[in-house]
Amino acid sequence: MEKIQSVKGTRDFYPEEMAVRNWLFDGWQAASLRNGFVEYDSPIFEYLQLYTAKSGDEIAGQLFSLTDRGGRELAIRPETTPSLARMVNQRINSLPRPVKWFSISRLCRAERPQKGRLREFFQWNTDIISDSAYEYADADCIYTAVDYLRSVGLIKDDIIVKISSRAMLAELLKSQGFVDEQLGTVYSLLDKQPKIPPDKFTAMAEEQIPDADLRERLMRLQSVGSIGELIEFAPESVQKSIYPLETLFHILGKMGISDYCGFDINIVRGLAYYTGMVFEIFDRRSQLRAVCGGGRYDNLLAGLGGPSVPAVGFGMGDVVLEILLREKNLLDSAKNHLDFFIVYDDYKIFEDKGLSLVNSLREKGFSTAFDYRRTSAMARQLKMASSQAARFAVILGQETIDSDEITLKNMADGSQKRIAIKDFLKETDKYEFQRRPL
Amino acid sequence: MEKIQSVKGTRDFYPEEMAVRNWLFDGWQAASLRNGFVEYDSPIFEYLQLYTAKSGDEIAGQLFSLTDRGGRELAIRPETTPSLARMVNQRINSLPRPVKWFSISRLCRAERPQKGRLREFFQWNTDIISDSAYEYADADCIYTAVDYLRSVGLIKDDIIVKISSRAMLAELLKSQGFVDEQLGTVYSLLDKQPKIPPDKFTAMAEEQIPDADLRERLMRLQSVGSIGELIEFAPESVQKSIYPLETLFHILGKMGISDYCGFDINIVRGLAYYTGMVFEIFDRRSQLRAVCGGGRYDNLLAGLGGPSVPAVGFGMGDVVLEILLREKNLLDSAKNHLDFFIVYDDYKIFEDKGLSLVNSLREKGFSTAFDYRRTSAMARQLKMASSQAARFAVILGQETIDSDEITLKNMADGSQKRIAIKDFLKETDKYEFQRRPL
Repeated sequence: MEKIQSVKGTRDFYPEEMAVRNWLFDGWQAASLRNGFVEYDSPIFEYLQLYTAKSGDEIAGQLFSLTDRGGRELAIRPETTPSLARMVNQRINSLPRPVKWFSISRLCRAERPQKGRLREFFQWNTDIISDSAYEYADADCIYTAVDYLRSVGLIKDDIIVKISSRAMLAELLKSQGFVDEQLGTVYSLLDKQPKIPPDKFTAMAEEQIPDADLRERLMRLQSVGSIGELIEFAPESVQKSIYPLETLFHILGKMGISDYCGFDINIVRGLAYYTGMVFEIFDRRSQLRAVCGGGRYDNLLAGLGGPSVPAVGFGMGDVVLEILLREKNLLDSAKNHLDFFIVYDDYKIFEDKGLSLVNSLREKGFSTAFDYRRTSAMARQLKMASSQAARFAVILGQETIDSDEITLKNMADGSQKRIAIKDFLKETDKYEFQRRPL
Repeated sequence: MEKIQSVKGTRDFYPEEMAVRNWLFDGWQAASLRNGFVEYDSPIFEYLQLYTAKSGDEIAGQLFSLTDRGGRELAIRPETTPSLARMVNQRINSLPRPVKWFSISRLCRAERPQKGRLREFFQWNTDIISDSAYEYADADCIYTAVDYLRSVGLIKDDIIVKISSRAMLAELLKSQGFVDEQLGTVYSLLDKQPKIPPDKFTAMAEEQIPDADLRERLMRLQSVGSIGELIEFAPESVQKSIYPLETLFHILGKMGISDYCGFDINIVRGLAYYTGMVFEIFDRRSQLRAVCGGGRYDNLLAGLGGPSVPAVGFGMGDVVLEILLREKNLLDSAKNHLDFFIVYDDYKIFEDKGLSLVNSLREKGFSTAFDYRRTSAMARQLKMASSQAARFAVILGQETIDSDEITLKNMADGSQKRIAIKDFLKETDKYEFQRRPL
């Protein structure tokens, strides 16, 4: 039989890659907890309708759908927010507010694999479902993303949080002659622009906005480079919708992360359900896709059959993040290693004295292993101890039978000593390295 | 629009349930590391063929299958072992032996939801791919499962590891007149017996083994209750295949877990690919399905296009385990809580002094939150602090502007003190509770 391969666009996490993934996840979790979020999770599949209802065409076109025995149409989750909205809706009356939740979710999208985009990936999501004073929740959301990124060593010269507001952009577009029905088209155009070649974008714009004058106005609007310029550019009718953005930047400044943040009128996000503030985080050199994206989605819960409750959140995927951290030499992982490897000359001695020692060391929480081959030469066993990065080899020989003694070999410096088993076990109480107590 | 529900047989993990799940997973991970396993993970979907090839009819009939755009047939993973075998096969020449890996996998099976069986669940898997002296690896595998279960408080009176061997059973069945072609049928019958009503079993047995004499012999064989009885019952030709089982029990005794283990000739496991030792762990009262099951599968790697390498492993699902631990009152979870909740009288004071304090506390690794509503009464904010289980409320008032002082309220005993912000920050260096340093 031929070897069966993995499916293209998925990843196998061998122990080395898994250690990196665990390091990423641990950082996400720690940042979430520091910032007052609690963890939740949703099923890997949902009713298809949950996604076709509100996520927009891009997501709906990338679903891995399936049908169960009862003929029900299901889909593997392509994003987490719809499940969050469903879960919150179900308990809306009993959940204390604000709902401030995070998850680290496995997501799947049936798209063409390319740099920074896979068909299976992981995404850190934080969401705040709160009542009023949107700018505080918006700021805390952005702060949490930046908190994580700086905790792994990214500085303000590495990354930039580009912030805008769909509510403001809608007013601005309307002031320029666009009508409500065109807004979705413009958002989708702006979101795609940095991802496609300029000539393709021009063709797309000409097709979707046939009026050359309108296109001209859109381009002029796109060149607004700061909140100051925006205030100057925008007519009176739009000024009111700029104020929340100003407030947000003021709060971000007070929280100490101004240096990471900037206004960018071209940020709209691809998902259909955003209503207010939107943001994306990029590497400053703009070589990669966004590391993180999020925004306010005040109508999603109501759109899925719940009450009207404002919400804001972001998603940060592992794929682009890992590329960025690797480029910056910031990728770390807890190395896999063992505390003790038991080495034996004669398997009868091992069975008599060694197996109970394995039990005692593991009961104390030390990671402990031994050679399964029963008749390996001691040199081979020591090599195995070394390849598994054991701190100590515990060597059993004739003296273990005669006088209950073992030889303790420090694998780092090669030093060794003979010690009675009971003294050795007592001594380990003082060892402070990795312990996994029962 | 109507509320969309979750799919039957899946679970929503709200923060309380997620805390329990995290506690389970942490225990699995700690036990794995203590016992010298390293973590890996595989994709959530694979080519359908990976499962239809070797897992047996039961699994193949429960697949969630899907087709991608390229028309390729895929399936959500219903178990982890085929992916493990695929991954090991791919790097068989470069991986150091033994491969001693664990994973905590989300799995899906399209079966009818019932007590202890869901359509989406999590499973802890450990596998050892080693060369020889099978009994050591077999014993270490069983030991690891028991190690976890006793680490969460289950004692020998709570659980029993029932152990047998398919290799031995095959010899024994053949000595009783069964032919090779019938073995699969008998394994499947024995595996189903405890899960179906006696009359249904009798009907099934009569259909699948029409020879009444053979059925009689099978029943007699099933009543063998110990290794001692087995040695007496078995003809000479079978004795050699009993020896590895005897050795295994000897080793388990030396490892100190005899009290948890017993021979049970009726254990065969449902999966098709087991070849040697098989085991299942049950609650002693046998009220629930198996908590854990595993065994030796020496032909699986070769069957999936790899070399012939012996392997042993087990899976422990979260669903039955959680029911058992809940019944025994052993279920625990790390409670969600906050370190500090900032309370403010006037949002201008908060923006001026509070936001930077939030930043400072989080930078020190303390989980810190505040009310987003900007104009809440202080009593409401304190109630929120309490509902989020904050250790301390940090109260900002006019004195914060006048003299840079805050009031620190201990939420546990209600005591409070006035302290300068800089002294407070210095004091927190001595706090040893939950800290999530940057």
